[in-house]
Amino acid sequence: VIGDDVYTRSDLSAISAEDCYLLLAGSSVGRLGVVVDGYPTIVPVNYGMDGHVVVIRTRPGTKLSHADHAKVTFQVDEVDHRNHTGWSVLMRGFGRMLSPADDREVATSTWGAGAVPWAPGANEFWLRISPDELTGRRITTADDPDWRLGTAAYM
Amino acid sequence: VIGDDVYTRSDLSAISAEDCYLLLAGSSVGRLGVVVDGYPTIVPVNYGMDGHVVVIRTRPGTKLSHADHAKVTFQVDEVDHRNHTGWSVLMRGFGRMLSPADDREVATSTWGAGAVPWAPGANEFWLRISPDELTGRRITTADDPDWRLGTAAYM
Repeated sequence: VIGDDVYTRSDLSAISAEDCYLLLAGSSVGRLGVVVDGYPTIVPVNYGMDGHVVVIRTRPGTKLSHADHAKVTFQVDEVDHRNHTGWSVLMRGFGRMLSPADDREVATSTWGAGAVPWAPGANEFWLRISPDELTGRRITTADDPDWRLGTAAYM
Repeated sequence: VIGDDVYTRSDLSAISAEDCYLLLAGSSVGRLGVVVDGYPTIVPVNYGMDGHVVVIRTRPGTKLSHADHAKVTFQVDEVDHRNHTGWSVLMRGFGRMLSPADDREVATSTWGAGAVPWAPGANEFWLRISPDELTGRRITTADDPDWRLGTAAYM
């Protein structure tokens, strides 16, 4: 699943797909990317993992509906502002809302991803993001003087 | 510049445009959203502000080139994982690379935004994002029980 890597640069350190999944499994807040009105809209969300699938619980009527049957991204990062180090993982994937037509197995493993509803009811929706590509990179002051100065795009 | 707010929900608290700009001015790391191959690609970047314009320094040949003359977004958030509170600001805007055809004034104010190059030279590029819309929201445990459980999309 490592393809054209938006983060790879010669002086930056790429993260393997395996390690990317470990980093995804170790966090609970990330950012969904979904194209709305032509804009690459970025929305912070809580999430869980169902294997290699990202699971996000949502409600009807939100912008998350634009993620259904669409190219989406999911991004998680951690930045140490003091030491100017960090990492970022980006999944490119396909978004799909869990629907009543889905197998019970899919539904069960989706609910099992940690997306336990606070108030169970008909107005609970789950978005699943299946990975097309997963890339990541680490940044350290040692190999990225631009970052240390706090002025450059880190890609 | 407050329009259709992706973050507004009745039980969440919207941030005024003025306060959004204050939050943007107070940070130095955000995320650029740019559509690449149909995916809403999210890239962490350092940035500076030139008035209401976001300034990002970059290099040729990166995915940032897709942001030139395109609808882009810029997002900054701060999440307190311990207390489950935070805020997020999202700018929808138009991206444009600074070019030799630009006025000296525009170039000077772009460079003055804090994007001082580490190694000055011909391979330094600046991306300017002019706001079309700016929205933001705060989340607190008090008004968002979903967030407290750490399971729901926070929009």
